[in-house]
Amino acid sequence: MNVTIKNVGEGVKNVIINDPKTYNSLSFKTLNELLKVFQRLDRDKNTKVIILEGAGKGFSAGHNLKEVRGYKNRSNHLKLFSLCSKLMLQIVEGRKPVIAKVHGAAYAAGCQLAASCDLAYSTKDASFATPGVNIGLFCSTPMVAVSRKINRKIMMKMLLTGEPIKANYAKEIGLINDCFTKKKLNNEVLKMAKKIASKSNLTIKIGKQAFYKQLEMPLRNAYKFTSEMMTLNMMSHDAKEGISAFFEKRKPRWKNK
Amino acid sequence: MNVTIKNVGEGVKNVIINDPKTYNSLSFKTLNELLKVFQRLDRDKNTKVIILEGAGKGFSAGHNLKEVRGYKNRSNHLKLFSLCSKLMLQIVEGRKPVIAKVHGAAYAAGCQLAASCDLAYSTKDASFATPGVNIGLFCSTPMVAVSRKINRKIMMKMLLTGEPIKANYAKEIGLINDCFTKKKLNNEVLKMAKKIASKSNLTIKIGKQAFYKQLEMPLRNAYKFTSEMMTLNMMSHDAKEGISAFFEKRKPRWKNK
Amino acid sequence: MNVTIKNVGEGVKNVIINDPKTYNSLSFKTLNELLKVFQRLDRDKNTKVIILEGAGKGFSAGHNLKEVRGYKNRSNHLKLFSLCSKLMLQIVEGRKPVIAKVHGAAYAAGCQLAASCDLAYSTKDASFATPGVNIGLFCSTPMVAVSRKINRKIMMKMLLTGEPIKANYAKEIGLINDCFTKKKLNNEVLKMAKKIASKSNLTIKIGKQAFYKQLEMPLRNAYKFTSEMMTLNMMSHDAKEGISAFFEKRKPRWKNK
Repeated sequence: MNVTIKNVGEGVKNVIINDPKTYNSLSFKTLNELLKVFQRLDRDKNTKVIILEGAGKGFSAGHNLKEVRGYKNRSNHLKLFSLCSKLMLQIVEGRKPVIAKVHGAAYAAGCQLAASCDLAYSTKDASFATPGVNIGLFCSTPMVAVSRKINRKIMMKMLLTGEPIKANYAKEIGLINDCFTKKKLNNEVLKMAKKIASKSNLTIKIGKQAFYKQLEMPLRNAYKFTSEMMTLNMMSHDAKEGISAFFEKRKPRWKNK
Repeated sequence: MNVTIKNVGEGVKNVIINDPKTYNSLSFKTLNELLKVFQRLDRDKNTKVIILEGAGKGFSAGHNLKEVRGYKNRSNHLKLFSLCSKLMLQIVEGRKPVIAKVHGAAYAAGCQLAASCDLAYSTKDASFATPGVNIGLFCSTPMVAVSRKINRKIMMKMLLTGEPIKANYAKEIGLINDCFTKKKLNNEVLKMAKKIASKSNLTIKIGKQAFYKQLEMPLRNAYKFTSEMMTLNMMSHDAKEGISAFFEKRKPRWKNK
Repeated sequence: MNVTIKNVGEGVKNVIINDPKTYNSLSFKTLNELLKVFQRLDRDKNTKVIILEGAGKGFSAGHNLKEVRGYKNRSNHLKLFSLCSKLMLQIVEGRKPVIAKVHGAAYAAGCQLAASCDLAYSTKDASFATPGVNIGLFCSTPMVAVSRKINRKIMMKMLLTGEPIKANYAKEIGLINDCFTKKKLNNEVLKMAKKIASKSNLTIKIGKQAFYKQLEMPLRNAYKFTSEMMTLNMMSHDAKEGISAFFEKRKPRWKNK
């Protein structure tokens, strides 16, 4: 197996891309395992928040070029890129928040993966790139995720030059939320994951799904849709309990942990 | 009345949410009054720019939880969120620029209100949050306005943790235009409002309405639409006068003050 | 001729707006020449990257107000704005990267032109503005380009006040990629252009066109579309050569230079 799962706190699962020999390349096998894992955790009642990281030297170098090189026909390539896109859509459209924990390099599809997560944190020396242009293969699918997070001219520079950016700059432009020393990263991400896991799971699930949907709607439709989602959320036990707890100045007891 | 209007300069109206006992909560009554006021000022010939602020300790804490708690059925909630959305759409789709002047807290629907304004200024110690997740009620309608102003990963962190951000950071991420000391805020906002009020009212109205519309169009349609708006604007007295004044090196005399 | 072309490196063309008497105003004649030039260079096999700059004191002051003033009817204006939009669309939808090299002022349609380029660099003392509101003519077509690059509240301030911003701030908000001293600008832009020109031209063309198209699609469609573009790119000689060169640790020899 190239993907492993660990319990690292109540409701917090750690998904590890575990193929350090290939710098956690997103081979067909690895993509497929990741997709299955994310689909399973999305249904799993004991999973509230997912931390995604890479084993070994870094996060992920992107597609497995040795594998890709062996592909002889159009349909092999299309199948690979479709599977990769399916994984990214699963992360975005899934109901559980996913936090990328990046060390070393997040390049090409690896950068896309970090960009697709709801939150992203990295070490100070982590680097991000869409370097496909250097091997004659423009990072066209990675740019879908990254260009929805950062400014267009900054993105164009990354795509046209293929040059990496450092963690501090990635934070400045909104590609990641924050960066920490190697020593601190694990604790900071775990703290964040536990904080989110302490909220009502139902509330988070309604909210995360509504977030990306409304972003693709015109303003009027977005308001109509989210008004319905707010109402649905409002009618739940957890919203009633949360409001009661607020007035009674006590901690809420979520039903949908 | 929970909403009051003051004249604070030629063509500049100050709309004050005046329910400090509830931290200017956006109750059904207050939302309804605000909607009526904004609709009226949009038609009013003597109103060119609107400043929106809260009375007492801060801007607005969002929906009135006591009221919401009393709602027993789906239709009450939906009616409230629909009214709230209608107010936000009125601000965005209205023809007069609206400047939020924020002190203290702008939370939940209060944060949405500040985000919906064309411009926003605050005190240095103002804070902004989408804290619904803490009471089991995800800030799904507030995120519609806020997520159209700031980066997605920063927004997600605000939504998933519910934690407030300070004015300086809100400026950095583009949620507000600037922040000032308490002493200075009023003057700075008034200066900005008067500057905008000194322009041709017709020009501003055409431009503001076109701005948000074109943002929701594909590039090609946006250019077709704005080319027509530019032409319409160009055929007006004020554009002709403005261009003449430019060549004659004098102040323009707007007809559509 | 108001537009001249120079060869400034292998595959690098310098397009110069050469009407310094009018501060390189975008008159009907100049817009038409620019459109023709960009259409021609897009088909030209020896052009890989285009640098766009203005002759004389600055980049461009926008539309030619003397000309506009003489227009008597609706159709003249509409024809001008349509031509201008056609040029901007040609730059965005064209297949060759365009780098704006800005010194002095880039105002109104001049600011739109710089914003429409894939990358933009300027001198430290360059300034950018959408000042139409000051002459009663809202910068409605310029805002189409600029509002797709920068934050909405910052854009609104520029539009409602008409005030210019300096290069450093333009960089901070993502309107330009970077700014340099006057002495350095030329070299830095040339270096960047040559770097991009050293990549596979086919790869860059596929990538640039896909970039702006996918940005206007919902996420799911964007992934479907770019997966097909990646596959098309993958089947080309240059991607195969690029990947081989990567494994053989040598420079790739592009066929589609």
